[in-house]
Amino acid sequence: MNDRFLRACRREEVDCTPVWLMRQAGRYMEEYMAIRRRYSFLEMCKIPEVACEVTLQPVEKLGVDAAILFADILLPVEGMGLKLEFAKDEGPVIHNPVRTEKDVENLRIIDPEEDTGYVMAAIALIRRELAGKVPLIGFSGAPFTLASYMIEGGGPRDYKNCKKMMWQAPDLWHRLMKKIAKVVLLYLKAQIKAGAQAVQMFDSWVGALSPEDYREYVLPYSRYVLEGLKEEGVPVIHFANNASSMLELVAEAGGDVIGVDWRIDLDKAWERIGYDRAIQGNLDPMALFAPPKVIREKVKRILERAGNRPGHIFNLGHGIHKETPVENVIALVEAVHELSRR
Amino acid sequence: MNDRFLRACRREEVDCTPVWLMRQAGRYMEEYMAIRRRYSFLEMCKIPEVACEVTLQPVEKLGVDAAILFADILLPVEGMGLKLEFAKDEGPVIHNPVRTEKDVENLRIIDPEEDTGYVMAAIALIRRELAGKVPLIGFSGAPFTLASYMIEGGGPRDYKNCKKMMWQAPDLWHRLMKKIAKVVLLYLKAQIKAGAQAVQMFDSWVGALSPEDYREYVLPYSRYVLEGLKEEGVPVIHFANNASSMLELVAEAGGDVIGVDWRIDLDKAWERIGYDRAIQGNLDPMALFAPPKVIREKVKRILERAGNRPGHIFNLGHGIHKETPVENVIALVEAVHELSRR
Repeated sequence: MNDRFLRACRREEVDCTPVWLMRQAGRYMEEYMAIRRRYSFLEMCKIPEVACEVTLQPVEKLGVDAAILFADILLPVEGMGLKLEFAKDEGPVIHNPVRTEKDVENLRIIDPEEDTGYVMAAIALIRRELAGKVPLIGFSGAPFTLASYMIEGGGPRDYKNCKKMMWQAPDLWHRLMKKIAKVVLLYLKAQIKAGAQAVQMFDSWVGALSPEDYREYVLPYSRYVLEGLKEEGVPVIHFANNASSMLELVAEAGGDVIGVDWRIDLDKAWERIGYDRAIQGNLDPMALFAPPKVIREKVKRILERAGNRPGHIFNLGHGIHKETPVENVIALVEAVHELSRR
Repeated sequence: MNDRFLRACRREEVDCTPVWLMRQAGRYMEEYMAIRRRYSFLEMCKIPEVACEVTLQPVEKLGVDAAILFADILLPVEGMGLKLEFAKDEGPVIHNPVRTEKDVENLRIIDPEEDTGYVMAAIALIRRELAGKVPLIGFSGAPFTLASYMIEGGGPRDYKNCKKMMWQAPDLWHRLMKKIAKVVLLYLKAQIKAGAQAVQMFDSWVGALSPEDYREYVLPYSRYVLEGLKEEGVPVIHFANNASSMLELVAEAGGDVIGVDWRIDLDKAWERIGYDRAIQGNLDPMALFAPPKVIREKVKRILERAGNRPGHIFNLGHGIHKETPVENVIALVEAVHELSRR
């Protein structure tokens, strides 16, 4: 079994640096598109056989060191009582956004086995199909990221309603975040029980906040989830996008591995996070549009910044772009392995 | 004359902290909308009397310590040969984006007095109308920000074409940046000659870059402009949006005042920039949707972080949101003055 990824999460020695890519199962891949044309996005998430097939595609094709569950971060909000739709090319829409006290009260704490049973079924199936080839990563959105979708009613643009609630009705905000954090913890625990060998919590939108607001309105809930996962004994990756100016706070919230975007040099990021954590990152996803020679140089520089310290997992600083040339992705994975060979 | 702003730029003692707001002349203000309904956005920029009136509105209404020229950062690209349009509610569109060698060759170095004479006329008029009440700030987009608009053909979303040129055709990229930097320098010098008492260079989109790419592909051109302005003897503000993880590089490029967004604590930012520069910032623009009491607290904390060190100019971390309640903006300006009274 290829356990490079899990070993790096635990900061153990590895034969070469493990690599996987956020959104590695996606539209840039022909095989994915062939399936996508037959199913809606939500169907793909909800039919375990389809989610399984799509999860495995990049493992075969790219030679990455981990599979990541194919799912959408908004799946658990349906069970909470929200009406989720993926409008064509417009991303997610929530038809009944959370704005009032009543809206917050009405939110249900999900039973992950029941409400998102299809996710757990997909995980079990993927594990069987992988047969130990590489580990499987489960994931969830972080409380703030889910809150911002739930309040804005879709992909947040200016966070107006979200921040309004935070500052105008802080009690309501805290009640909402408490509920969401509970859901996230239950959801991730269920994924681990179903077979996920590591999990990642994505705080995709937290870069919209000042460090002070993060500390007051977000950190306690991220910490609740990350603390709660400790007893599960699997590595937990905490990725906070566009938060490189408050990495100390992100690390304070928790996570065995801290994911960083490309806006910061990896060595500086690691120094600020602390060497008692592993680090994941941090190539600009758009670098995959560069010629392979340039990609290789960029990989080399990131590996140099990681140094010989154990605990680096190579990844992009954000999800892979849908038009990425797949041959460049293959070249990237090869370059990481080759240039980091111990 | 209220010279708090200019004094703070030079890190001299002030009676209280000066404040102005990025995009302070804008749609959140009734008086602005009354004019906006009569003219297109480009007409407003190009009729000096209208640009003047709109520039003065927030000075009267808000009590800010500086006026900033009403203009669009893309105005100089018309003279370079690009066809600029402001499509309804869609932001700027450039109908002939710069992609090829020929496109770059064809770009003209503008004569600012000729190609953007209306800007210089507006500046002269505003200075007369202000009659020394508060200083007038001129501005330009930074080379990278202009390049990204010019290459993408409008507001950049994923910077795909822009980064492709950077990495696939670096010689072409450098030739383009050289031309743009020349234009920016000429344009800002002309504004100063026309009467601008300080200028701000906006690098609105530079947060899309890794520090390494910034250093190689952008910094030399920002520095060219900022060095070139030194002999003019007016304070220069360098605002690099979403760049708080590479503030050292932004400061290295130059500027008497470094503008920072709200993603970093002001004291940490200043420490990294160096106390030999003044600092501008850094309230989250969305905080203006909070109740006045919360706004006041946030102002207080930013002022505390600035400490008693001379050289802090209060501002938002980004442009003001179009739906901002104007009474909250007035409350903000009052709070800054009152809470910082020496």
